[in-house]
Amino acid sequence: MMKIDNLLKNMSEWLKGSGPHSNIVISSRIRSARNLADVPFTQWANKKQRDESRKMIKSALESSPFLKKSNYLDMDGLSDIDKQFLVERHLMSREHASTPDSKALLFDDKEIVSIMVNEEDHIRMQVMQSGFNLTEAWRIANEIDNDLSARLNFAYSEKIGYLTACPTNAGTGVRASMMLHLPALMLTNQANKLLQTISKLGLTARGFYGEGTDVQGNFFQVSNQVTLGRTEEEIIDNIERVISQIIAREEAARKTLLMRSKEKLVDRIWRSYGTLRSAHIITSNETIELLSDIRLGIDMDIIKDITTAGINDLFVLTQPAHLQKMEKKSLSASERDLKRAELIRKRLSK
Amino acid sequence: MMKIDNLLKNMSEWLKGSGPHSNIVISSRIRSARNLADVPFTQWANKKQRDESRKMIKSALESSPFLKKSNYLDMDGLSDIDKQFLVERHLMSREHASTPDSKALLFDDKEIVSIMVNEEDHIRMQVMQSGFNLTEAWRIANEIDNDLSARLNFAYSEKIGYLTACPTNAGTGVRASMMLHLPALMLTNQANKLLQTISKLGLTARGFYGEGTDVQGNFFQVSNQVTLGRTEEEIIDNIERVISQIIAREEAARKTLLMRSKEKLVDRIWRSYGTLRSAHIITSNETIELLSDIRLGIDMDIIKDITTAGINDLFVLTQPAHLQKMEKKSLSASERDLKRAELIRKRLSK
Repeated sequence: MMKIDNLLKNMSEWLKGSGPHSNIVISSRIRSARNLADVPFTQWANKKQRDESRKMIKSALESSPFLKKSNYLDMDGLSDIDKQFLVERHLMSREHASTPDSKALLFDDKEIVSIMVNEEDHIRMQVMQSGFNLTEAWRIANEIDNDLSARLNFAYSEKIGYLTACPTNAGTGVRASMMLHLPALMLTNQANKLLQTISKLGLTARGFYGEGTDVQGNFFQVSNQVTLGRTEEEIIDNIERVISQIIAREEAARKTLLMRSKEKLVDRIWRSYGTLRSAHIITSNETIELLSDIRLGIDMDIIKDITTAGINDLFVLTQPAHLQKMEKKSLSASERDLKRAELIRKRLSK
Repeated sequence: MMKIDNLLKNMSEWLKGSGPHSNIVISSRIRSARNLADVPFTQWANKKQRDESRKMIKSALESSPFLKKSNYLDMDGLSDIDKQFLVERHLMSREHASTPDSKALLFDDKEIVSIMVNEEDHIRMQVMQSGFNLTEAWRIANEIDNDLSARLNFAYSEKIGYLTACPTNAGTGVRASMMLHLPALMLTNQANKLLQTISKLGLTARGFYGEGTDVQGNFFQVSNQVTLGRTEEEIIDNIERVISQIIAREEAARKTLLMRSKEKLVDRIWRSYGTLRSAHIITSNETIELLSDIRLGIDMDIIKDITTAGINDLFVLTQPAHLQKMEKKSLSASERDLKRAELIRKRLSK
């Protein structure tokens, strides 16, 4: 699968550690849900209907001038490692990997746009940007959506808006989210309370891999809970306002840490760095937790000899399927723990 | 106190990491207890009598050709840090430091011989050697004892032997001990059972600073429990035979570790090394535990860029009074934790 292997050589655009507030906001993401009017929703469709919708959508995607440099993959024939690899790169959902029948994925080389075909909805498009940058993500998403609307007949009701398999997505069909790194709010025990407050403002916080996943390494994916009855602009405006406040809180917490317990913080960060540079066996989980400390260390000018992009790269490359793709063979969990440690040592010893 | 400060510049002879079985046996030690026949035991003597015994002993020590290059110190005037410093160097007991009245200490520049005056007994002599080398320690102790016997009238009974304040020391008055590093027996959970067996063979195991101290960093001080009714040669022979067996067991346990869980061991040792090279706050306890891992790593050829002597040096220099002597000022516990981490980083970054 050369299309997939090529991804290994590049870093996803959204992981470059650039863009506004990139010390706290890893990435901004717009996701839209669309369905064909003339075919049942994926879940209710039979195999023939699903194959038909995939064919129609594939043809539309390939005709779109905005998706010219993209790669299209049918899910059916992919190996488990390749599917897991695409999930690890945040190009598609775990669900898309677990039942690949009649499903497809399209993504561009920079991994800015990815489109799942026949996931919960017929079309699930995601546009990613590095840093606090929903507006640009939305601009791109809107452009592609307009183009696809001209090529496909989307299920739409004047009263509700876009129709979706799950009613929580109906209306604009748009979900906006940002991936936030909130180590100082976690260290000062303010994160839980803050996340409770968020849910009162129509937002929700999830783990690193989205819905149903644990918070690891102090990363939170914050998104809007409801899409119905609001315009896309209102959704984006609301989430941007709330996240601006979270950023301010995290920045204040970082200052507090520096003022009240700088030595403890420096000790923690350098110990994590020392462990990463020395360990010979390390799990994914421990890696993410330690890399989170290093990221904070870079942001706070405590660690100066590595870049955020370098650390982001390690977050991605140390994941199970990535390790196996790099080694070009399947590895057991304990073999991965060895290879992961080796890779990290090599990268951090420069 | 220049005599004391000079010690900082040198490494104790017995810490050089040389001598037979020095991968497991840190040091061999002979300790003898003698009392003057014509003065009550220290505990029963009044101040005048204690001062008198100190004077008599001082004069004998200063006349002995074997103790010419030694330093004599009255305990009364020493600062708390200086006393703790001498305890940390294993030149005298904690008890000798805590009630310094009418007490004295003599030691040579290489810290092979040290003599406490008016500790529990009037004279407590200790002779240290690096590695498995009780015979040489005993040879030196015997030579000095013979010389002092000609200068002082020791309390001696034909039936019992040398009389001592505590009956467990009576007879030869000699205690032989070795400081052992038994990390593999600890890691394979064999140490406790072994130490129970030892006590059935007339031996006892203690922590790093002798009687009443905890085992830290897998260091055990093994010594004979009884001195009465045995010759010095029998005592030394017995302890050497038992310790030879312990060495064999530790070596077997190290081989087992290498065979069955080399990767786990390598990971543990390198993580400890990484932590020591990176930490910015570190306690004495953690330091000893981590240095113990590094020592094992050197012995097992896992770590090659430092020497056992270098690690032994850190064991000594990172102790509280040593840090304060080096900094030339008194430091709080948390200040010491910072200075200790700084010293370790500096020493291990070469």
